[in-house]
Amino acid sequence: MQRTDRGELRLRAEVGRADVAAVREITAATRFFRADEVDVAAELVEERLARGEASGYHFLFADAGASAAGYACFGPIACTVSSFDLYWIAVHPSFQGQGVGTLLIREAERRVAEMGGTRVYVETSSKAAYASTRAFYDARGYRTEAVLEDFYAPGDGKVIFVRQVG
Amino acid sequence: MQRTDRGELRLRAEVGRADVAAVREITAATRFFRADEVDVAAELVEERLARGEASGYHFLFADAGASAAGYACFGPIACTVSSFDLYWIAVHPSFQGQGVGTLLIREAERRVAEMGGTRVYVETSSKAAYASTRAFYDARGYRTEAVLEDFYAPGDGKVIFVRQVG
Repeated sequence: MQRTDRGELRLRAEVGRADVAAVREITAATRFFRADEVDVAAELVEERLARGEASGYHFLFADAGASAAGYACFGPIACTVSSFDLYWIAVHPSFQGQGVGTLLIREAERRVAEMGGTRVYVETSSKAAYASTRAFYDARGYRTEAVLEDFYAPGDGKVIFVRQVG
Repeated sequence: MQRTDRGELRLRAEVGRADVAAVREITAATRFFRADEVDVAAELVEERLARGEASGYHFLFADAGASAAGYACFGPIACTVSSFDLYWIAVHPSFQGQGVGTLLIREAERRVAEMGGTRVYVETSSKAAYASTRAFYDARGYRTEAVLEDFYAPGDGKVIFVRQVG
């Protein structure tokens, strides 16, 4: 158990109806995602609710009391033997800088390894605005494997990080 | 219109129930895809049949008489402004070496550009067995943008090609 300014943090892998709104709120509040990206983040929760684990989307929520402080969404990459994608990881600004992201990423990695995964991929933008995001992965043992120039938009490339786990 | 050994080739973007089996047959016959990959290829057709264009999967079939000689599956990449993925392109061995793949990839690119796409990404294996696949993309103006080592499996990396279109 870990404490934040607002109390104890609990990790939860079960996904409920209310998490659609929670994911919307967290991702929008970070101001790191466009509206269409917030929509995609919420759709993955819907997909998980509709199809269960067969959706391929695993979630981890870090709850601080009644609030979701942050969450991670990850899953096996189709057509790979043991590669996983960390699709989303986001911490609500009210809870940033308190180790929530580290707790989420480490538990996600543990669960990936438990499912037989050996590599976790995570992607983010190459833009200057995402320097703190890239520094977060760097500091947690992820290395830059590739950069796809102009992938997201002209001048906005995709940086692909990877970490071996298990 | 283009001719093959078995007659005229017709390109078709409409997807029908029979295409689930056609895609299974084509992908399995190439011997380039594992059973789980053939499953995924067929699932994308099902997804398209179930959800229409909202699935995000666009198809092109090259029909030679009553047979599907090959097909391509492509679509916009979520959270990007104008990047598209060429998810699948495969030509039945009976029709290889007759320009079917070129016809499919060029028409896919034309349709991507028509939808406002500017970049087409395609991924394949780094293994020696896929040298001909990589040469196919190379020869059609795709350049290697990145290689993710061990992505598909140990010793089996992912090569990411990209071509600007439109």
